Order: sequence, then C-alpha cells, then structure tokens
Amino acid sequence: MSIKTKGQSVSFTIQNALILVESGYETTAVQVVDNCISAIALQNTSFNSPSYQGENSPLNSPPYQGGARGGETVIDAKNKLLLPGFVNAHTHSSEMWQRGIIPPLPLELWIAELYDFTPLDTEQIYLSALGTAVETLLSGGTSVVDHLVLIPGQELETIAAAVSAYQEVGIRAFIGPLIQDASLTAGMPAGDTGIEHAAYIRSTQATLDLMKSAIEQFHNPEKGVNILLAPTGIQLCSDALFQGCIELSDRYNLCRHAHLLETPAQKKLAQEKYGCSAVEHLKQIGYLSPRTSLAHCVWLEDSDIAIMAETRSTVVHNPLSNLRLGSGIAPVLKYRQAGVNVSFGCDGAASNDGQDLLEAIKIGSILHNITDLDYRHWISPLQSVEMASLGGAKGLNASDEMGSLEVGKKADFVLYDLTSLSLLPRTDPIGLLVLGRPTNAVESVWINGRQIVGSGKVTTIDVDNLRQELFDRSEWSSKRQSPMVSEIESHYRQVMKLQGYS
Amino acid sequence: MSIKTKGQSVSFTIQNALILVESGYETTAVQVVDNCISAIALQNTSFNSPSYQGENSPLNSPPYQGGARGGETVIDAKNKLLLPGFVNAHTHSSEMWQRGIIPPLPLELWIAELYDFTPLDTEQIYLSALGTAVETLLSGGTSVVDHLVLIPGQELETIAAAVSAYQEVGIRAFIGPLIQDASLTAGMPAGDTGIEHAAYIRSTQATLDLMKSAIEQFHNPEKGVNILLAPTGIQLCSDALFQGCIELSDRYNLCRHAHLLETPAQKKLAQEKYGCSAVEHLKQIGYLSPRTSLAHCVWLEDSDIAIMAETRSTVVHNPLSNLRLGSGIAPVLKYRQAGVNVSFGCDGAASNDGQDLLEAIKIGSILHNITDLDYRHWISPLQSVEMASLGGAKGLNASDEMGSLEVGKKADFVLYDLTSLSLLPRTDPIGLLVLGRPTNAVESVWINGRQIVGSGKVTTIDVDNLRQELFDRSEWSSKRQSPMVSEIESHYRQVMKLQGYS
Repeated sequence: MSIKTKGQSVSFTIQNALILVESGYETTAVQVVDNCISAIALQNTSFNSPSYQGENSPLNSPPYQGGARGGETVIDAKNKLLLPGFVNAHTHSSEMWQRGIIPPLPLELWIAELYDFTPLDTEQIYLSALGTAVETLLSGGTSVVDHLVLIPGQELETIAAAVSAYQEVGIRAFIGPLIQDASLTAGMPAGDTGIEHAAYIRSTQATLDLMKSAIEQFHNPEKGVNILLAPTGIQLCSDALFQGCIELSDRYNLCRHAHLLETPAQKKLAQEKYGCSAVEHLKQIGYLSPRTSLAHCVWLEDSDIAIMAETRSTVVHNPLSNLRLGSGIAPVLKYRQAGVNVSFGCDGAASNDGQDLLEAIKIGSILHNITDLDYRHWISPLQSVEMASLGGAKGLNASDEMGSLEVGKKADFVLYDLTSLSLLPRTDPIGLLVLGRPTNAVESVWINGRQIVGSGKVTTIDVDNLRQELFDRSEWSSKRQSPMVSEIESHYRQVMKLQGYS
Repeated sequence: MSIKTKGQSVSFTIQNALILVESGYETTAVQVVDNCISAIALQNTSFNSPSYQGENSPLNSPPYQGGARGGETVIDAKNKLLLPGFVNAHTHSSEMWQRGIIPPLPLELWIAELYDFTPLDTEQIYLSALGTAVETLLSGGTSVVDHLVLIPGQELETIAAAVSAYQEVGIRAFIGPLIQDASLTAGMPAGDTGIEHAAYIRSTQATLDLMKSAIEQFHNPEKGVNILLAPTGIQLCSDALFQGCIELSDRYNLCRHAHLLETPAQKKLAQEKYGCSAVEHLKQIGYLSPRTSLAHCVWLEDSDIAIMAETRSTVVHNPLSNLRLGSGIAPVLKYRQAGVNVSFGCDGAASNDGQDLLEAIKIGSILHNITDLDYRHWISPLQSVEMASLGGAKGLNASDEMGSLEVGKKADFVLYDLTSLSLLPRTDPIGLLVLGRPTNAVESVWINGRQIVGSGKVTTIDVDNLRQELFDRSEWSSKRQSPMVSEIESHYRQVMKLQGYS
C-alpha cells in the first residue's frame, strides 16, 4: 500500500493492525496526520471501496511492506490488535502511597486511616501521579480522571505537581481537585447520637475561589490538561458548594464529577440530610447533566436510575474498590437497560490496590453475571471495550474527540501484542483481552498522535528512576495504628447496627 | 553468615529474603538440603536464638555477603519476599484452547459449547498443560490440580501427554482424569419435560478399570505426579461410579476431587435425583473425607456447610469462573467460620479466562466483603496467603509436606521481586501482593528443591517455542456457532424459568 500525502504532512501510518469491524476482525491501515486519525482502510481494499473512511489521505493497494519510506513513518502492526484508548474514569493518584497497607475495612473507617497517613509533600504527589499514569498506560488507558486529594495550604501546588507529572508522561489528564466543606466525621450518619463535627479547615467561598484559580491556571485542553469541578460528594459537601461548582462548570464549560452513593451508610446519610435520595437531591439542585460523571453509584433505587437516564449523567463503575471496601455491587445491568452511560475506573490505589484498567474492566463486566439469571443481559467483551473507551469519553463530554477509531478523532489508541502468552492460543482477541488476564500485552500507546509507549515500555519518562524514588521514600511495614479509626469505630458499629458495637 | 554443612550435602541457601514472622517481616536465610527445607534463621540472630529452626544445619552470624562460596550455592534475595508456593487447586488445562471465545453463558450452555469444540489431539493436551503450568508458576503457584478432560478412545494417552508436560516444566502435578457415566444433557434438571438422554460412551466399570490403569501407570509422588479420583460431579455420575472411586482412593491412598453445586441448576437437579441435597447424598455414600476437595461449592445450605466441616472436606474456591458463568458467590466467610478448609483455583481457562492465581486469590478474597456487613469477618491478605498455600496443601492431604515455610517440608517456594513497580511504594508486601495487581512480580520459583523460574522466566522449557506452537495451531475468530447450544438452549430457559423461553 502506498501513501499519497496530497500536500498534507503525514505523521505516520500503522499498517497490518487487526481492528474490529462489523463482520469480525480485519487487517487495517490507520493514518494519523498531526494529532488526529486522518484515514482508516482495510488492507485488502482500495480507497474507493465502501470500507474506506477519510477524505484527503487515501491509503490504497497494493499493500505497502512496512518500514519508513520517503520520510513517512510506517509502523508494522502485524499480529497486533488496535483499540481506542480506555479512560481510567475515576482514581485518586496520591493513594498509591498507601496501597497494600490499609486492612479490610468499610469506606467510612478505611478513609479515616487514609486521612491519618495521607501524603503531605508535593514531590510525593508528583511521583504517585507518574505511577498512576504508567500503570494506566500499560493497561490500555490513554486518559485518566484524577480526583486529586489536595494538601491543605498547598492546594494549587498539589495541582501543579500532578499537572507536571501527567504532561511529562503525556497521558490525557482530567484533574478534579477533591473539595469539600465539612469535616470527615460528618460523612457518617449520626443515627440517634447527636454527634457534633469540627468545622472544616476552609470556608465554602474560599474553596470556590481556589477552584476558580485552579481553572484559570491549569485548564488547557490543547495541552492535554482538563480541570473538572469535583466536590467529593453529598456526604461532605453543602448545597452552596455544589451550586458554586455548577456555576463555575457552566461559566468555563467544564465537566462535573463527584462520588455518589458508594455505601449503605451514605444512603442512610442522604435520608438524614435531605429526607430524599441523594440522586433526587442532586437533580433538584441542578448538579446532574450530560457532562456530569458520578463515581460508584452502588446504592441507587430504580427511581434514581430513571433520573440518571433522564439527566444523561454518567456512572463510573469502580468494581474492585466496591468489593475491597465491601460497598456492594453497582446495578450496572440496570443502568445499561435504562440507557445510562457507564464507564470504568480503578479508583485510588489504596482501595484496589492497583491501577490496572484491564482488571477493572474484566471484573466490572463479569461481576454482574451473578445479579441477573438471564445471560442475555450480561455484558459481552465487545460491550466492555466500548464502555471503557467511548463510555469514558462520553462521561467527559468528549465523545466527539475520542473514544473510538474514527476519522477526525484524536489519535489516542493502543496496540496490543497478540503473541503474548496470555493472549494465546489465538481465539477472539477482544475476548482474550477482556476475559483473560493479559500480562505485558500493551505494546504501544499513542496519545494525541504522540507515541508514549513502545515495545511495552513508557518512553517519555525513566520508569526505573521512578521505581527508585518510590522505593527510597517508603518502607516495608505490616502494622500501623490509625488514631482516627480507633476514635470513630464504635460510633460506626453502632449506627450500622453491627454486633457488639465496640 | 557462614554455613556449616556438618557432613550434609547443602544444596543451596537463600539469604536476605523477607519472610513473614509473628511480629511482621524479618530478613531471613533459608537453607535447602536435597529437596527439603533444612534450616530457617533470622539473619540478625545466631542459631542459638529462639528464632532459629532446624537441627543439623545452623545458619549463624556474622552475615554472609552472598555469592557462591566453597562450592555452596548462595542466592541473594535482597528486596525479595519469600512465600510458600500456592496451589492452583482446580483447573482443566485443555480449556486453554478455548479461552476468550465462549460468549457470556451460564455453565449448562457454556459447557455445551466447550464440548462442541474440545481438543481431540494429545499434542494439544501437552501444549495446554505446558501453558497452564507456566501461567500458574508465574503467578506464585507450585502445584496444579488438573481435572483433565480425556479424549475419548485416547484416555491414557491424554493423561500421558499432561504428565509429560508437567514433568518437563517441573511443577508438582495432581491430575484428576475427569470421568462421568452420563451424557452431558443429563446434567440439567428435567423439570416437567421428561427429556431422555443418550447413553454415555463408556460403561461405569470400563471407566473404573481405566482409572485403575491410570493410577498404576502414572501415580508417582516421588516424581511429582499424583493421580486423583475425580468424577465430574453428581450431575453426570452414578452412585456406582462414586463408590468405585471411593474404593480405588482407599486402596491406593489417593485424594478425591469433584465439582460440587456450582450452579442453581445443579441444586435443583440434586433434589430431582436424590430428594435431598447433593452434600447430604455425597455424605451418605461416603465420598466426603479429609482427603476430598470439592470445586465451587456455591449453592450449599447451612446444614450442608456443617457436613463439610464434620467430614473435614475442602472447598476449592474458583471466584472468577463463578462470576464469568454467573454461578454466584460461594459462601466462603461461612465456610471459614464453620472451620471448613478453603483453597483457591483458577478453574479452566475457558471460564476465567486466564490461569493467574494471584488474580483468583485477590478476587476470591475481596469478593466476600459484600456478603457480610461486619468487616471483622473479612479475609485479610495474610489469611488469603495461608488459604492459597497451606489450605491448598490440606486439600491434597499434603500439609505435612508442603504449604508453609517450615523445616522438613518440601522446598516448594517463590521469591517475589518487591522492586516491581506494581509492588511500590513499599508498604505491606503481602498486602501489595494480594490486594494489588502484581505484574512481573514472580522472580524465582523452586519446586522440590529445583529451580524452575529465575529472573522471572521459566528455565525448564522454551516458552517462546510454546508461544509459537500455540500461535501456529490456532486462528483469530470472533464468531462460531455451537450446535449443541442451539439444541438445548430452549430447554434450559424453560427449566430455569427465564422469560420468553426460546
């Protein structure tokens, strides 16, 4: 296949890649000009055939043999599968410092331990954002939504550290600085205890001012950095905070994010606070919208699901975290039946405790088979891939730009090596990728037309140096005591009606 | 640390490994003589201290610096975690040929498709046993229980092919030739349909004769090959077959294995066949015992669980397969509370669709957090490791010989590289290993004192050659039609009361 550039600067062409088409898999060439996909063509067809997509850059037969030619870069993707990049649609990067260490606890106690030992150093923020980006890339992700925990007093510096890390790696970043205006203990239902909570460290208005500064300083989609409005959730945020976020998101045309009904305790709390469900309340105050994505969504009633569909909000499914914290199984088959968009997230690495998107996609797909006897409702591997890519893009109001292999969309895509032992023998490549346990399967990653991973290695940063830094700044330990867990555990056991309260 | 051999032939010593002790982690030396652990000593203590274990081979200070010395082999395990090998306590190796390709279906339809395309070539059996062994080793397993599907007419040849593969790799193998004496359709409840089933291809007595030959020909624990009696389960086996297996297991002192109550359909079928639960029936006929392990155990009542405890039978938990096939969540927390031994299996690679034990251990541990609000019942990472190692050994009546790092036990153990990015930053090594998503973490594996994996690579076989063979004997495909699924689907939908039967 020869390439005619017709005056355009051809960036590169990927040849011989397997891609998915309606009838199955086909060997295909994909051409990228600047940072977008400019042409896609089956390699046994000419550019005049109906399977040809694209206007200015025909890819036509006879087949081109690979290698650079006349200054054009041609990449041979024989025995490789090309898929659109996935979105790691909910995580908290700095939790990486505590992965593996927090014992099996429900969210309300787990988070107390998390807060007791949270990193307070922007260098750590930078390193864990690098680690989160690397693990996301090596499991098929090209975009990450970082619901970023801020260091008190160094809020903008925290965001700057994460921005630096993501830009250095080259992953597409959606950073939602995690904001709230109530203290942690307010996140538990009070029950009959009349418990009082300390005031939060910062006023609602100061937090909104901070967000305005963050947006003006860091939001830069052209450079791959997007800011989201991301109050942590109804459990720790006032209506005034939500409303301030709505106003900023409208003014700057930004997406909204939050946690939603992750645990039974949060469901109980919503009734205490509002006398209605959290979803009904968020609808009333106008937070739900086609550019709102909500992490977890485990404890929604059918009437709540109808509201999610009606407002075209997105559910971010974090199956591993929901199991690890005992939160429950989100009713994802019901969401799909109601037409609610669903994407996948790893959640922070202290509640998972990795950042492997393929693991989240597998478990987040097969987990629901036990919730519905009728297998005709189960999620197929193809549907899983679409949820992880296009579903992720929709939740970020970016489905015009990313989430599928289409001419005109950003060149955010991933090549998987189908000769990895974990993807053999050859059967259905997407079935193997989603239902199997792929190891070392990501061969190359491009984001915005730039190659970020090659031969299975991240090329933009020195990963060995990152490992050394993470190693040097940490130590092995099997035991630590969280003062806050000790303080609140008996209240938690009491309101959740667990035996022998203390 | 110097090593005094006192007349024994020291095989090797592993130095500076992190191992788990009661107070946390300690740097330790482990000495192996012949194929067993001969001494274990903390490296900051002398052999007279209470932490010294072992009689004839003291490992004493000052610390030895690593490297070979005076003909003794010394392995430096700095920054590595040493754990006993895990047991992949239930799989079907030849399913690897169909991984990734069977659509989301419940067991009773999934198995029809599996049978329609099952491999019929002993070379394939050999290759998929190699693949199963490699994936098990690289995820921390040192023993595999292969519930081996036999090629009709080439039954002993099938077993011989698997035996060759496992001996070549050097993994400890427990092969349970999968036997039955009813045709596949008899595995579904009849409901009111009065459906008739074809006779099975082989008589009960011929099958028992076959098992006698298999035992006499292949059972050789000294060489790492063990034969199990393994009727597939109550759904396809007569009492005569179970009783013949009991007799053979008693005569040759062998373990027993079977599937048990994997699906709601099997629970219904047991009531149809016996008028009591499958567990009650297996107890009545004497199949349950301390050397009986039963795969799945999803649909047991509390009274069945009491029988499992009383007979000291082992549950093999296959969480990924149970999700993939929509079978349900096995009541593992209840088993543990009742004192029932539980181990982990990957199950066959067509219902998982990988053979990564660490994945099975992670999901098989955190999955249960959603079944019990009281987090004090949840499985800790330490308990998970014990279930996967000692629990696995107990289920094979081999806990005197393997399953923990103890002087006198077989040298079946694994070194994990704690500098792998997926296990950083440093926190609790076992927490990271179990709750994280380790990649390329297995650095070395020894089985029966022999090194099988080094620098993350299997050293006993040529894995690239295996990949090539698997590649050459297969092809990518997204669509195939199973005639048997089409034939039985409407009956299945009818007896399971699924909407719109056909």
